[in-house]
Amino acid sequence: MAASTPVVESPKTRIMMGVNESSMKGYPHASISSKSAFEWTINKIIQSNTSGFKLLFLHVQTPDEDGFDDVDSIYASPEDFRDANRRDKIKGAHLLEYFVKRSHEIGVACEAWVKKGDPKEVICHEVKRIQPDLLVVGNRGLGPFQRVFVGTVSEFCVKHCECPVVTIKRSANETPQDPVDD
Amino acid sequence: MAASTPVVESPKTRIMMGVNESSMKGYPHASISSKSAFEWTINKIIQSNTSGFKLLFLHVQTPDEDGFDDVDSIYASPEDFRDANRRDKIKGAHLLEYFVKRSHEIGVACEAWVKKGDPKEVICHEVKRIQPDLLVVGNRGLGPFQRVFVGTVSEFCVKHCECPVVTIKRSANETPQDPVDD
Repeated sequence: MAASTPVVESPKTRIMMGVNESSMKGYPHASISSKSAFEWTINKIIQSNTSGFKLLFLHVQTPDEDGFDDVDSIYASPEDFRDANRRDKIKGAHLLEYFVKRSHEIGVACEAWVKKGDPKEVICHEVKRIQPDLLVVGNRGLGPFQRVFVGTVSEFCVKHCECPVVTIKRSANETPQDPVDD
Repeated sequence: MAASTPVVESPKTRIMMGVNESSMKGYPHASISSKSAFEWTINKIIQSNTSGFKLLFLHVQTPDEDGFDDVDSIYASPEDFRDANRRDKIKGAHLLEYFVKRSHEIGVACEAWVKKGDPKEVICHEVKRIQPDLLVVGNRGLGPFQRVFVGTVSEFCVKHCECPVVTIKRSANETPQDPVDD
């Protein structure tokens, strides 16, 4: 009797996506450009081949200059600091929930995690650690003048990340009145 | 009797690829970075979903400063010029044959064409005309010092092309002794 041949599945293509919150609506709303990047990946790359891909969602939280977002908070005890960190974590988790839910609806495997720091540095660091096949990042599509003030994470990633990187701009009809918003 | 329902196929994702000849071997050999970009697209993006994609191969021929590659040729009549143009066309077609053959073997729909001019300008112009969903370009992965002298088509495309662009570097083990070669 012939031994049964195991079905050899080719490894899934691992696509990492940097996602952030909306600059207008805040947590837990995803930015317009993060959503655009996600929908583009689903519609143009994954299509119906849901078993061929795994999505890796990374959200990087940026601390304020003093390290805290909540300017009205009073930190009187070690517990206050712990609570603040916990609140941040929950916010990040709520944002990622949107993408993980959508991936499950579509039937694509995924993982999601939160890191703190400078988004562009952290994304490149995580690319080095995780070694995805492709990094997809959203981009507001700002002109050179606007870019001077807001900087762009995507440009840095294209230049410095160790894997192929694709930048997805928001569509024109999704651009808010002030294009710096997202 | 119920009318037969037509099968609605979702539109194919159209991936444009800029491909060029090897700087070491010349025509009809494809450059290492063009081949890497092609294999990456097949293995990581298209996978077994061959009916979901169409590949659009563009090869841009760069004329020498005087407009001709063949420095030994003597152009004594209008026919000589016509012959030179025809030879260039045939060379370009031979290069594209490699990619079209591989695509047919794999079962992915494709188209291929040759244009003349400055590769970076022509690729961006063709992106504007053809409006692909994604542009894939190869890249030698040169350091900043080497880039000053050879320039990079991929950097220009990332910055100026109107569609998402992904740059694929050669793998380290495919880099020739002089990395400027390709």
